[in-house]
Amino acid sequence: MRDVEVGSGKTVIVAGPCAVESEEQILATAHAVREAGGHMLRGGAFKPRSSPYTFRGLEERGLELLARAREETGLPIVTEVMSVKDVELVAQYADILQIGARNAQNFFLLEEVGRADKPVLLKRGMASEVEDWLLAAEYIIAAGNRRVILCERGIRTFETATRNTMDLGAVALVKQLSHLPVFTDPSHGTGKWYLVEPLAMASLAAGADGLLIEVHPSPEHALSDGAQSLTFDSFQQLVHRVRAIARAVDRPLAEPVARTGV
Amino acid sequence: MRDVEVGSGKTVIVAGPCAVESEEQILATAHAVREAGGHMLRGGAFKPRSSPYTFRGLEERGLELLARAREETGLPIVTEVMSVKDVELVAQYADILQIGARNAQNFFLLEEVGRADKPVLLKRGMASEVEDWLLAAEYIIAAGNRRVILCERGIRTFETATRNTMDLGAVALVKQLSHLPVFTDPSHGTGKWYLVEPLAMASLAAGADGLLIEVHPSPEHALSDGAQSLTFDSFQQLVHRVRAIARAVDRPLAEPVARTGV
Amino acid sequence: MRDVEVGSGKTVIVAGPCAVESEEQILATAHAVREAGGHMLRGGAFKPRSSPYTFRGLEERGLELLARAREETGLPIVTEVMSVKDVELVAQYADILQIGARNAQNFFLLEEVGRADKPVLLKRGMASEVEDWLLAAEYIIAAGNRRVILCERGIRTFETATRNTMDLGAVALVKQLSHLPVFTDPSHGTGKWYLVEPLAMASLAAGADGLLIEVHPSPEHALSDGAQSLTFDSFQQLVHRVRAIARAVDRPLAEPVARTGV
Amino acid sequence: MRDVEVGSGKTVIVAGPCAVESEEQILATAHAVREAGGHMLRGGAFKPRSSPYTFRGLEERGLELLARAREETGLPIVTEVMSVKDVELVAQYADILQIGARNAQNFFLLEEVGRADKPVLLKRGMASEVEDWLLAAEYIIAAGNRRVILCERGIRTFETATRNTMDLGAVALVKQLSHLPVFTDPSHGTGKWYLVEPLAMASLAAGADGLLIEVHPSPEHALSDGAQSLTFDSFQQLVHRVRAIARAVDRPLAEPVARTGV
Repeated sequence: MRDVEVGSGKTVIVAGPCAVESEEQILATAHAVREAGGHMLRGGAFKPRSSPYTFRGLEERGLELLARAREETGLPIVTEVMSVKDVELVAQYADILQIGARNAQNFFLLEEVGRADKPVLLKRGMASEVEDWLLAAEYIIAAGNRRVILCERGIRTFETATRNTMDLGAVALVKQLSHLPVFTDPSHGTGKWYLVEPLAMASLAAGADGLLIEVHPSPEHALSDGAQSLTFDSFQQLVHRVRAIARAVDRPLAEPVARTGV
Repeated sequence: MRDVEVGSGKTVIVAGPCAVESEEQILATAHAVREAGGHMLRGGAFKPRSSPYTFRGLEERGLELLARAREETGLPIVTEVMSVKDVELVAQYADILQIGARNAQNFFLLEEVGRADKPVLLKRGMASEVEDWLLAAEYIIAAGNRRVILCERGIRTFETATRNTMDLGAVALVKQLSHLPVFTDPSHGTGKWYLVEPLAMASLAAGADGLLIEVHPSPEHALSDGAQSLTFDSFQQLVHRVRAIARAVDRPLAEPVARTGV
Repeated sequence: MRDVEVGSGKTVIVAGPCAVESEEQILATAHAVREAGGHMLRGGAFKPRSSPYTFRGLEERGLELLARAREETGLPIVTEVMSVKDVELVAQYADILQIGARNAQNFFLLEEVGRADKPVLLKRGMASEVEDWLLAAEYIIAAGNRRVILCERGIRTFETATRNTMDLGAVALVKQLSHLPVFTDPSHGTGKWYLVEPLAMASLAAGADGLLIEVHPSPEHALSDGAQSLTFDSFQQLVHRVRAIARAVDRPLAEPVARTGV
Repeated sequence: MRDVEVGSGKTVIVAGPCAVESEEQILATAHAVREAGGHMLRGGAFKPRSSPYTFRGLEERGLELLARAREETGLPIVTEVMSVKDVELVAQYADILQIGARNAQNFFLLEEVGRADKPVLLKRGMASEVEDWLLAAEYIIAAGNRRVILCERGIRTFETATRNTMDLGAVALVKQLSHLPVFTDPSHGTGKWYLVEPLAMASLAAGADGLLIEVHPSPEHALSDGAQSLTFDSFQQLVHRVRAIARAVDRPLAEPVARTGV
């Protein structure tokens, strides 16, 4: 997509806020991501959460703001689609369609994105075995879309000191079992901003092809996932430290996006 | 619904095959369920499974066969709806809409059945904490449908000797936290037909208001879940043994369905 | 042992405090257990817990108090042994040697109690698969002691609404795989006193041969496990309700212990 | 100990077979470990496993062979002690006393090694939360021994594609919570030899101070854990690749052990 290649031996960093909250927030973040060396912008427009009584996202307005941020920065956009009926709409804006962990076995949705003309980033379900995860990808591929990126985001275990348990053994295993690129999401994987950097580094060392990182201009004011979001400064440091690991494993960071790439 | 009351102090048994496979199969099962003392008929018409390459169910034809079985036996029908776009269709046939474990946090689907005019049986997700499960119910209720039945079907743990781990502590806890009726599904909860009866009994002793039991005319030929399906004979024995527990806990089995109840 | 038979088709209730705290506490509890219809007295003399800085038990003084309680009430004693070097000492006082969950794969300790002349109640480890648990029993049996009682006390899963997750599917399975009697411990299994009764009932319905129940004269002042301990009154009610289930499954409560049985 | 410093900003590699099987096996392995750049030799002398009917280790003879290997190579020895009564014996031979996962909450054993005059490598239990693990270390420290190395070896989760689930989030977290050095054991953590290298690399990137690696002259003939053991060649390659990560995170491999260091 655009000028970022995934799974081609270069490491790709996708960063941005959990949810698109405002024009100011998403534009500031997009610029910061780009300047720090990030390759794509993430941000949720549809964000219903565990409780029906919390912030649900800006929906189509959020998609428009993401497109605006792309225009300004050249960063391709990764955003989640949560419902069969929204696939067409989201695909008009997104460069990569994200399937979230809670929809990891929503087979109708998997088939619908399998018919879309955009790559799909497929998160592992929080109770998905490696086999379930690969079969979920198979749903998308069997429907005709071979551009699938797998994304480990932590599984649910007895350990509560971290929000989830990142399963980097599964990342290394899937790199052996499948030709698909594998990303990780250490923000959801740990739930704590100060663990994101070491787990991002560990992910690359385990073989991951890319990273999803939550970044927010002001994490303490984020409408969701503030505790796991990096500030612009700590994101910049993360890119710096991740770069060293990426080199050590011969999968250097991808080239910066040309602003005119759009 | 029809003449079966749920959560009214009587124990309700819902039984039938995992998937509707043929007219002969579903009619034979419906009659056997009714004769043994079951109160409702379950059966899946939409059955995509972990792999895209397995049997997927008869879809609308399956719903028609369920309706046919209801006509013959008077048994209300519980069947799963897996997609927002199918809610209206399924609601035309079903007496209770089932939400499966893999859609336990498919928030758009929860809201859609929340707008339907049928009760909803909401399975717990295999990685749902009790709080997630109650909040999922809240999505349905917040959309306007207060007729929600919770259903524990086993969670995913390290133990593989059973297919899932039935969490009867959660059943007892939810009976204290919520006014909603709670069923259990010992067929999925154990994955082994010879454990269904003891776990059905244990469920009622823990406080469950009803049971979902997989029954098949010939489990060894079932297209799905054969290992956990009861024969007609073992279902009959289960009802007999469950009746004793239901009495011991002062929640006797509900009255048999009148054939003319439809 | 004495006049209580285990695994003979009668249901056995073992009750008492988590830890022996004082003469007054253990004697009062023993009398209450006996009057309510309990068959054996439990109580820990060696109680090191997760932190080295908490109450550790009265050690040999605790064993003496248990023996005193047995003299007064006729109740046989179940108490934990935690170290190879203490097996001989504990066996002088106890009627049943308990192996705790944290020692479920302490193979040297298993072998040592395998050489003792007392029955062993073997708790399942919090991460033990059914196979691990049965093999742990095999360590005891291979060392020469065939009188082993298995005890399910909850496993560790992602669910934190209860202290552990009681795995009654494993109880039903082990009843099929093994000739050994199986008890459950719904106090540790749930961690909440108000869930002990329903899970005790469910345990018997699932096939358990006996129960371990924590009872304390004043749970809010207990030095350990107060939140999961029953008062004397709620224990009395539990015995009453459990009796109904025991009858329904044709494993009635064992006869009360004769005071002169000692 | 000897001339290897742990937790001093250099990365330490401990390698060797699961169990000492013969003089030939342990000497050959020790030389291979030393030549490849490993810093210490591991090997089990006491090896009772889940079943009482499998190989149990050479016991004191195994300790003698380890000492012999140390004489020849200068590599300090890490070996497990499983019982209070063996602490004195094992401490005569070992440079570091290992506490295995199954004894992670064997409080009497923790206290006994707390009184020994050797550093302790404390494995995390397969169901230990981070807090349990740190409190287990506290048992050793409270008894007087401050030289504790923590070791993450994988926890038990629903995922069975790997033997355990390596929890590198916990490694990063413990590095923040505690001053103690943290090692990982990717051999037990994954159970598959071809995942050991990527997880070893990931461990260092996450912040680990050292590694435990299973190496065997002929893994397919190993008496235990063959599937997760590296050959000498693949161990050599692992050291090479790990070295690059160690440099990238500014914790280069420790100096090779001087043969005369003993």
